[in-house]
Amino acid sequence: ERDKYENNDVAGVVTGLAWTRVGGDILFIESILSKGKGNLNITGNLGKVMKESATIAMEYIKAHAEEFGIIPTIFEKYNVHIHVPEGATPKDGPSAGITMLTSLVSLFTQRKVKKSVAMTGEITLRGKVLPVGGIKEKILAAKRARIKEIVLCEDNRRDIKEIKEEYLKGLTFHYVTDMSQVLDVALTKQKVKNAKKL
Amino acid sequence: ERDKYENNDVAGVVTGLAWTRVGGDILFIESILSKGKGNLNITGNLGKVMKESATIAMEYIKAHAEEFGIIPTIFEKYNVHIHVPEGATPKDGPSAGITMLTSLVSLFTQRKVKKSVAMTGEITLRGKVLPVGGIKEKILAAKRARIKEIVLCEDNRRDIKEIKEEYLKGLTFHYVTDMSQVLDVALTKQKVKNAKKL
Amino acid sequence: ERDKYENNDVAGVVTGLAWTRVGGDILFIESILSKGKGNLNITGNLGKVMKESATIAMEYIKAHAEEFGIIPTIFEKYNVHIHVPEGATPKDGPSAGITMLTSLVSLFTQRKVKKSVAMTGEITLRGKVLPVGGIKEKILAAKRARIKEIVLCEDNRRDIKEIKEEYLKGLTFHYVTDMSQVLDVALTKQKVKNAKKL
Amino acid sequence: ERDKYENNDVAGVVTGLAWTRVGGDILFIESILSKGKGNLNITGNLGKVMKESATIAMEYIKAHAEEFGIIPTIFEKYNVHIHVPEGATPKDGPSAGITMLTSLVSLFTQRKVKKSVAMTGEITLRGKVLPVGGIKEKILAAKRARIKEIVLCEDNRRDIKEIKEEYLKGLTFHYVTDMSQVLDVALTKQKVKNAKKL
Amino acid sequence: ERDKYENNDVAGVVTGLAWTRVGGDILFIESILSKGKGNLNITGNLGKVMKESATIAMEYIKAHAEEFGIIPTIFEKYNVHIHVPEGATPKDGPSAGITMLTSLVSLFTQRKVKKSVAMTGEITLRGKVLPVGGIKEKILAAKRARIKEIVLCEDNRRDIKEIKEEYLKGLTFHYVTDMSQVLDVALTKQKVKNAKKL
Amino acid sequence: ERDKYENNDVAGVVTGLAWTRVGGDILFIESILSKGKGNLNITGNLGKVMKESATIAMEYIKAHAEEFGIIPTIFEKYNVHIHVPEGATPKDGPSAGITMLTSLVSLFTQRKVKKSVAMTGEITLRGKVLPVGGIKEKILAAKRARIKEIVLCEDNRRDIKEIKEEYLKGLTFHYVTDMSQVLDVALTKQKVKNAKKL
Ligand SMILES: [Ca+2]
Ligand SMILES: [Ca+2]
Ligand SMILES: [Ca+2]
Ligand SMILES: [Ca+2]
Ligand SMILES: [Ca+2]
Ligand SMILES: [Ca+2]
Ligand SMILES: [Ca+2]
Ligand SMILES: [Ca+2]
Ligand SMILES: [Ca+2]
Ligand SMILES: [Ca+2]
Ligand SMILES: [Ca+2]
Ligand SMILES: [Ca+2]
Repeated sequence: ERDKYENNDVAGVVTGLAWTRVGGDILFIESILSKGKGNLNITGNLGKVMKESATIAMEYIKAHAEEFGIIPTIFEKYNVHIHVPEGATPKDGPSAGITMLTSLVSLFTQRKVKKSVAMTGEITLRGKVLPVGGIKEKILAAKRARIKEIVLCEDNRRDIKEIKEEYLKGLTFHYVTDMSQVLDVALTKQKVKNAKKL
Repeated sequence: ERDKYENNDVAGVVTGLAWTRVGGDILFIESILSKGKGNLNITGNLGKVMKESATIAMEYIKAHAEEFGIIPTIFEKYNVHIHVPEGATPKDGPSAGITMLTSLVSLFTQRKVKKSVAMTGEITLRGKVLPVGGIKEKILAAKRARIKEIVLCEDNRRDIKEIKEEYLKGLTFHYVTDMSQVLDVALTKQKVKNAKKL
Repeated sequence: ERDKYENNDVAGVVTGLAWTRVGGDILFIESILSKGKGNLNITGNLGKVMKESATIAMEYIKAHAEEFGIIPTIFEKYNVHIHVPEGATPKDGPSAGITMLTSLVSLFTQRKVKKSVAMTGEITLRGKVLPVGGIKEKILAAKRARIKEIVLCEDNRRDIKEIKEEYLKGLTFHYVTDMSQVLDVALTKQKVKNAKKL
Repeated sequence: ERDKYENNDVAGVVTGLAWTRVGGDILFIESILSKGKGNLNITGNLGKVMKESATIAMEYIKAHAEEFGIIPTIFEKYNVHIHVPEGATPKDGPSAGITMLTSLVSLFTQRKVKKSVAMTGEITLRGKVLPVGGIKEKILAAKRARIKEIVLCEDNRRDIKEIKEEYLKGLTFHYVTDMSQVLDVALTKQKVKNAKKL
Repeated sequence: ERDKYENNDVAGVVTGLAWTRVGGDILFIESILSKGKGNLNITGNLGKVMKESATIAMEYIKAHAEEFGIIPTIFEKYNVHIHVPEGATPKDGPSAGITMLTSLVSLFTQRKVKKSVAMTGEITLRGKVLPVGGIKEKILAAKRARIKEIVLCEDNRRDIKEIKEEYLKGLTFHYVTDMSQVLDVALTKQKVKNAKKL
Repeated sequence: ERDKYENNDVAGVVTGLAWTRVGGDILFIESILSKGKGNLNITGNLGKVMKESATIAMEYIKAHAEEFGIIPTIFEKYNVHIHVPEGATPKDGPSAGITMLTSLVSLFTQRKVKKSVAMTGEITLRGKVLPVGGIKEKILAAKRARIKEIVLCEDNRRDIKEIKEEYLKGLTFHYVTDMSQVLDVALTKQKVKNAKKL
């Protein structure tokens, strides 16, 4: 099984939940910075909608830089690259939105991502979190990958209620409506070791 | 049901009415500003015609900046991102035109959008409002979402007349021919809380 | 019926005649200027050939700026947006060429377009006007829309002769071979009210 | 019949011979200059190969500017637009190459094109002229359009020999191997009236 | 047989293992530098995912330049071209990721690649190595090409265990989890002869 | 027959061997320089792989400018246009690689190409020459076109051995492994008449 590696030592790596033709799966959003002129690079065999999620996340952060404690001039000095590993698998849909936003906030603040957290949810340009599909399959995949806490849209609470209790053992759910709540759950106050000085 | 959130605290968020394969629906146009060089970013799984509506709205505002009390040099200092949530649903057609223009005027003036208003109509480059289809389905969707006031093209008045009275209870209609009338109905004189200084 | 609005108060709006799958129709060419760097934006769900017409019109005007009394340096200071309303209808073909050129000359000179005139014809880069198809259907549509004068290519005169006299009542025809003749018929010497100072 | 207009008063307009699905036809290559930065615009509903011919012609002239008496710095100060009228007809193939090159040399030197000449032939980057197909159909079309002199590749001489003598009456043929011979036949030493000063 | 040439005298040439429709094969990743502005050129008849691998490798190196002893300002002064020979064969998939990264590190450090090493594995933006498919076929191809050492993802160890012992004779396997381990195995400390001074 | 012209008076024109649906053929690679900013223009109705060959050739020369006696700053001062005549025929594949590289070296050094030489072979970014297909058909085409010397990859020697002796009469073969050997055979030390001063 490929999906066991986990690592919150590096900023910008966040675990998401995906729904593929062969069932639920976890996926990783990775983002890095390199000196540049503000370009956004997106890879991982992604479809149009998933690429749009990356753009929305990036623009949201730019528009709310101060709230996140990010100096706005930073955006013009670095290129951002967002990647979703396992290039052989085509990926699409809006559900990685909150994972991408969390990844980017971690990257630009160098804050450490909480251990054993995974998430799934669409993001809007206002920072609202929207519900997504395939919840049952995603939860089963999360358990297999030893995830402990899961962030979902409040409107997906009903989907969890329809899942047999025994499948939910050992999982903590965080239901959110706004992006700020996702970040409260998923990002620690602590910086990563060897945090980059931006 | 996903379509209950409503929020006029933020500039640039306006409710539209859409006609999809599964019936009428409401949709939200969201727009935000970030420091930049005048680029226009459009997301939300939109087709060519709906993207053109965004371009038309943007160009119209640029050409009529003074009338809206917008300082023309602002356009070169910011990037605009327009997003239509629910990325899993492909969207197209010209009927979000007036919603997009209202969103952008709110964004650039930071004026508050009126509560409980929704709208649908094509915009022309002269600021004329053109009629659109699917009116009956759109009205039913608006009621379900607790919309109180609806802005339509004057030429869509006949479509409303064909709808049974009982479905229209509690709804106020504003029939317009020009974009300026849309803005009169939909935007308050008041600025949003924590209005951005542009 | 959507096709009754008419308005020659604004520079850059000209009435054309189109031939669609459902018969003849009138269409409007709208163009506006905004401060910029000489970009040309074209919208309205147009096909490749119709977009080329807009390019040809624009380049023709640039190459003959002095003849039209336009200061050539203006072209680098403004962006031009050409739009053809009714985005739900795909449009293509070369027959809007003379309408587009008239629209742009009106825009850059702020000269008023003559009332009740419509036109159809292909333009060449030399300013020649070429004949187009669907004349009968276009004429019927023009009558329905209360057009009084129609500009056509000299080579389309034969198509008019084949139409029953009674359908032509109340219509004046202007047969032209060169673009300069179109402008003589369609543009007044008068500037529009509140003409832009370019 | 559309194909009667002919006009050598303007620089940059040259008559070519084309082979379409409905038989032979004449076509016009039109080119104009406007102040700019050296961009090349190509319109007329052309396919990839025919657009390449325009690029080849342009690059050939740039590389041989001195031979043609053209000041090389001119190329950066103007935009060139090449158009092939009758946008409703898709056009492709390499056979307009020599017509395009003749058009551009006329344009940049403002030399008058000889009256009643038409041509067809592929151009190479070295200035060689290559034979093309559809010769018989093209010749018949030329006669109908009252062309008097025709420029062809030397290797197309055999195609002319296979045509009945009576169809060739009144036509003079110029067989060429190099682009310089085309220009000797097709361009006069005289400048056009009101020649542009470049 | 085409696949015998081998050469570690030049920086930037690394041997990979590929899985094609006709079985396993070795392939070469070649990269070169030319004075430029930081552009990345990718050729070799590659599909989208394989091109993404090149981008990921390039961005990873930019983000970790110091660790590799590369002066970051170098990236803006050179263009990089990555090529995978045998253009007649379409190639795709993520498995050349570690080969590309090794090639680029060799190129920018001018360090010599170890002789007789081949590799296959996906790279992530964090420098993790992921397992890939077609291991058995790739190993057989490596033997045919006289490869001695093979670098694989730790998670591909199980695939090797399923191969008959006799096929593995003469091969040394290096199982890795991180990109740094690949470089430890594949790059010598020595610079190539006539190393470029960057 | 079109394929008889031959001319080594001009730099940048080199004869290649191609394999098309209708058998073997010779083709010409033509390249020219015009003042510019380092752009590369490629025409001739070429597919993706053949265009990549041109890019590889260009980048190889840039990376090895000194070895060829080319001043590297030249590349930013000129645009290069590579053309393969006979635009009506689609062309693809990597086998023109060595012909393109020879053409470009001739162009940038203004060295004369040897008379009666033709070649076919893929080029790699390291300057290796790879074997290609269709050798028999190409050789027959070369004889018809009165070629005297042929440059092939060493690995294509076996293909020549399978051809009947009588077909090879009058042909000299040069088997190569590296690009430098191709240039030794194909380029003379002599500059072309009226060599351009770069
Ligand atoms: Ca997986
Ligand atoms: Ca997710
Ligand atoms: Ca909805
Ligand atoms: Ca709407
Ligand atoms: Ca209409
Ligand atoms: Ca028209
Ligand atoms: Ca014709
Ligand atoms: Ca022609
Ligand atoms: Ca191979
Ligand atoms: Ca590989
Ligand atoms: Ca041939
Ligand atoms: Ca060849």
